[in-house]
Amino acid sequence: MRHVYVLGVGMVPFGRYPNTPVEDLGAEAVLAALGDAGIPATALAAAYCGHVSQGMTLGERILDRAGLAGIPTTNVENACASSSTALNAAWLAVAAGQYDAVVVMGAEKMRRGLLPLTRLAEGDLEGLLGKTIPSLSALFASRYAAEYGLTSEDLAAVAVKNSRHAAHNPYAQYRRPLTVDEVLASPMISTPLTQLMCCPTSDGASAVVVGSGRYARRQRSRAVRIVRSHLQGGVCIGTRSTPNVTARAARQAYELAGIGPEDVDVAEGLDYTTMAEILLYEDLGLVGPGEGVKVVRNGGQTGRRRFVFSPGGGLLGRGHPLGATGVAQVAEIVWQLRGEAGERQVPGARVGLTHAAGGVITGVDDEASVTVHLLAR
Amino acid sequence: MRHVYVLGVGMVPFGRYPNTPVEDLGAEAVLAALGDAGIPATALAAAYCGHVSQGMTLGERILDRAGLAGIPTTNVENACASSSTALNAAWLAVAAGQYDAVVVMGAEKMRRGLLPLTRLAEGDLEGLLGKTIPSLSALFASRYAAEYGLTSEDLAAVAVKNSRHAAHNPYAQYRRPLTVDEVLASPMISTPLTQLMCCPTSDGASAVVVGSGRYARRQRSRAVRIVRSHLQGGVCIGTRSTPNVTARAARQAYELAGIGPEDVDVAEGLDYTTMAEILLYEDLGLVGPGEGVKVVRNGGQTGRRRFVFSPGGGLLGRGHPLGATGVAQVAEIVWQLRGEAGERQVPGARVGLTHAAGGVITGVDDEASVTVHLLAR
Repeated sequence: MRHVYVLGVGMVPFGRYPNTPVEDLGAEAVLAALGDAGIPATALAAAYCGHVSQGMTLGERILDRAGLAGIPTTNVENACASSSTALNAAWLAVAAGQYDAVVVMGAEKMRRGLLPLTRLAEGDLEGLLGKTIPSLSALFASRYAAEYGLTSEDLAAVAVKNSRHAAHNPYAQYRRPLTVDEVLASPMISTPLTQLMCCPTSDGASAVVVGSGRYARRQRSRAVRIVRSHLQGGVCIGTRSTPNVTARAARQAYELAGIGPEDVDVAEGLDYTTMAEILLYEDLGLVGPGEGVKVVRNGGQTGRRRFVFSPGGGLLGRGHPLGATGVAQVAEIVWQLRGEAGERQVPGARVGLTHAAGGVITGVDDEASVTVHLLAR
Repeated sequence: MRHVYVLGVGMVPFGRYPNTPVEDLGAEAVLAALGDAGIPATALAAAYCGHVSQGMTLGERILDRAGLAGIPTTNVENACASSSTALNAAWLAVAAGQYDAVVVMGAEKMRRGLLPLTRLAEGDLEGLLGKTIPSLSALFASRYAAEYGLTSEDLAAVAVKNSRHAAHNPYAQYRRPLTVDEVLASPMISTPLTQLMCCPTSDGASAVVVGSGRYARRQRSRAVRIVRSHLQGGVCIGTRSTPNVTARAARQAYELAGIGPEDVDVAEGLDYTTMAEILLYEDLGLVGPGEGVKVVRNGGQTGRRRFVFSPGGGLLGRGHPLGATGVAQVAEIVWQLRGEAGERQVPGARVGLTHAAGGVITGVDDEASVTVHLLAR
């Protein structure tokens, strides 16, 4: 298997685009990534597009809008892990030698309101009973508070941190730094989670150009290597199983990459609520069980080392257009590893991780599928 | 790249399942394919699922229903080429050595009524003006009639042939042999195409288990090799360009496989109307331009050789649950190449082809993406 590199990244500022077709958002991101990669459009041998509910053949429609139609295109869906699963397929295609350079895009326009559980159809009892993504996360928060002394102020602190990061990110939906009091005073969504502890719904698009060493060599130090792309499925062992699907995916990815959690400088994960982010510190192996709350209190410090989570603002600050999120996370990590992240730059970042988790199926672990990407300069 | 084999196939009889969840249909097909492959469920390392509009994480939901949750799952959409695009991704993963055995499934429950053009949203002028898939095909028929003397009886003859094949296929939706008079007397959908010259809308599911030589060797002569899986994108060169995307995909696939159209004994293609099937004879290189109608009149005979198209009844007779069709075509070809097709067996079939084409985008070739699979015993 060949080494695979991110050659270029692009995205549109996440937000609300009521009058802009999703194809336009996607095309803008794709053309930005292509420009950033500095390779001609004719070098793109294939395309992968992640989205959830934007209709048939979205990738082909975006490419058509961008003037790039005509390459083999695969549209991929895996709920919140859609475009990161698309990246997983693209990574394999380049690693296997099938293609030398491909574009991976994610795009989504969202409806307003709470994210429902994956399926509100027959068979999903919890969905029918009204459970939403925030209320599921609120149950985790109550349990975590009982076990490890988590407070509402801790939960608010994550939103405050991420809003500070997002304030420096020109692609973020919400760019105003929040205070703990503001977060706590915002409307209660599902106790103990307030509105500002839950990610917004957003429109957006993102893209990365991925290629082999042949192209990476021309970029010299600018190319960021995808050391490993890993996709893992959730199994039927009950909610909040230990180790859960995210933890298993991370362990596998570290092992396959030869990179440990102690090497990770910067990470973007599926922080759909502040509670979700705290659990991710632990599930991704960055700290031990119950230590997530300590990380919050120590500003990312754990023992001797420090990692920065959600440098781009995370889902909470950057926004969460489902299909666009996975690739946007990778774009942020690439900017960080290149040292191009401006005021939100994490000094000396050399190893980055992205995590996305998609789908909640009653009785199946806590997510249907999880992706973990490990990137290094 | 390693050789890749189809180890097992399964499907549910296509038809109407108003009271059966799509997950149940998918699970039945997956378990049938697994049983046919004769390998344990634990051997499956990953899953690929093709569908168009069955909601989030369908593959994971089907695997959960089948008791097989827990493997990396990628959901793929490419309109009518959805599950064949999923097979393309699976083929690459096995060929690259990423996985040794994977399952590819397709499943769909359809609404009744004419298939609209891909997008009825802003931007698709032809869709907004009311063009449907049958009316697009009717335009091709009028043009073809003017150029090559096609008659309504020729168009009906394809439906008659396919109904005869479907009558012998226990998985087909319509199993009554039709007569030319019946086909011509059925309601006119879009002149010159009558209802029985257009594929029905159907519910259904299909699955194949795909693996490396390691598993194929245990099966001995029963394993069918996927000599090549090819995915091609449509470019912006106007409707009915020559060579169009299907023709270009077929040429590429033949070249990459080292198999010529003259070697093809049996083929399943996207015969969404009888006109579409006639054009496929030509676009797939089985005969020259304008010779498709001669094939109809000569019962599949062209010059010295004979090929059988739509041995399972095609979309017209077997039915067309969008996401399930691509893998169902492969299942039929595998049965044919194994000599297990019962009364519809094509004697001595050794090389088979499947073709699917997905999505129609205004101004982009005639389809957004096309898959061609070449299989051999």
